[in-house]
Amino acid sequence: MRILHHQPLFPQSRFVRLLLAEKKLPFDLAIEKVWERNESFHNLNPAGEVPVLVEDNGMVVPGGGVIAEYLEDVYPEVPLLGRNIAERVEIRRLIDWFERLFQQEVMINLLGEKIEKRLYGYGLPDGNVMRAGYKNLRFHLDYIGYLAETRTWLGGPVISAADFTAAAHISSLDFLGDIDWRRAPAVRDWYARIKSRPCFRPLLADRMSGVTPPAYYADLDF
Amino acid sequence: MRILHHQPLFPQSRFVRLLLAEKKLPFDLAIEKVWERNESFHNLNPAGEVPVLVEDNGMVVPGGGVIAEYLEDVYPEVPLLGRNIAERVEIRRLIDWFERLFQQEVMINLLGEKIEKRLYGYGLPDGNVMRAGYKNLRFHLDYIGYLAETRTWLGGPVISAADFTAAAHISSLDFLGDIDWRRAPAVRDWYARIKSRPCFRPLLADRMSGVTPPAYYADLDF
Repeated sequence: MRILHHQPLFPQSRFVRLLLAEKKLPFDLAIEKVWERNESFHNLNPAGEVPVLVEDNGMVVPGGGVIAEYLEDVYPEVPLLGRNIAERVEIRRLIDWFERLFQQEVMINLLGEKIEKRLYGYGLPDGNVMRAGYKNLRFHLDYIGYLAETRTWLGGPVISAADFTAAAHISSLDFLGDIDWRRAPAVRDWYARIKSRPCFRPLLADRMSGVTPPAYYADLDF
Repeated sequence: MRILHHQPLFPQSRFVRLLLAEKKLPFDLAIEKVWERNESFHNLNPAGEVPVLVEDNGMVVPGGGVIAEYLEDVYPEVPLLGRNIAERVEIRRLIDWFERLFQQEVMINLLGEKIEKRLYGYGLPDGNVMRAGYKNLRFHLDYIGYLAETRTWLGGPVISAADFTAAAHISSLDFLGDIDWRRAPAVRDWYARIKSRPCFRPLLADRMSGVTPPAYYADLDF
């Protein structure tokens, strides 16, 4: 069976779980404690990061964006990267937006400080860093809201990998109670639509020791 | 004429100039002072970053990795993203390595502190951050050297976008005098080969006020 090495709360891992489920590709999950820097895992992915997809034929594919391209090349039946050049550019732009920009400006400052620092043994969260993360998050929620208000789905008229990377990141923050839904109604409506898809169920069932998500986290109607 | 909005010393911009030249696609350059946050440029790319490619037909394509995929989709005659699935995975892995990991662990700490901080008016370079950058650079040079020693080109048997993103980043650091070539002979041999290609000439001719590159920077034989 295909194996996805992952961390339940890391958005890049969630992104790939959503893509695999939408493409109806069965997979087993293997939790990788990346902070332990296991040598066998570094042989799979020298970057030492999750997600890493290992196919039955031995093909090893590391990284959210790289896996998204690989799945589209090999399993194009359910297209998630757009149906023409303009859609492909826009969807890839948004994947890069979340996997790189949102990761750097928001996730490192919030998930990084609250969870990863503890796992890596790097000490206590830094309040200044978290404040910068919340400030950046407000800008990003406004931008996601603008996309959700002016389009059917974030990347255009059809659901795509752009929605799944965005939802993966938002769901991690929502688990931490970091999304103020009152000030982002358009994002809330879009997220309720994507959260009710079957692909999302397993993510909403994940729990992590030491962190209790808010009551509405797994509530499909909020 | 196709226009590339760029910054001469930013590696993501250099990467795209190399791809366009290798694919023999003519283009005009437009320098964008991203630190001035021009509204017209933010309308082109809401992320406010270079590079942004604007095609004659009006298509706007932002970001190094996104542009690499776009060029391969539309101009596949000179393939730079691999000829089969395994090559494509490996080349995309390395593009992600440089555009995200190397950028985050090395470039932000060195180019960011030495050059970008001044341009954005964010104050003086922080010695601790630069030391972390040099430490990370040594690890990355070892890894690039390992790839260069065990393969013809970084991504495999043929030259690819993996070489051009790597060379773009290395050339920016070399401009700053930050590469200690004595401790990276395999990287040096690989870089000398790629530096002597016609696509590299315009990059080596770029100069920046206030920074003088080392004498060997534009020397094709080192």
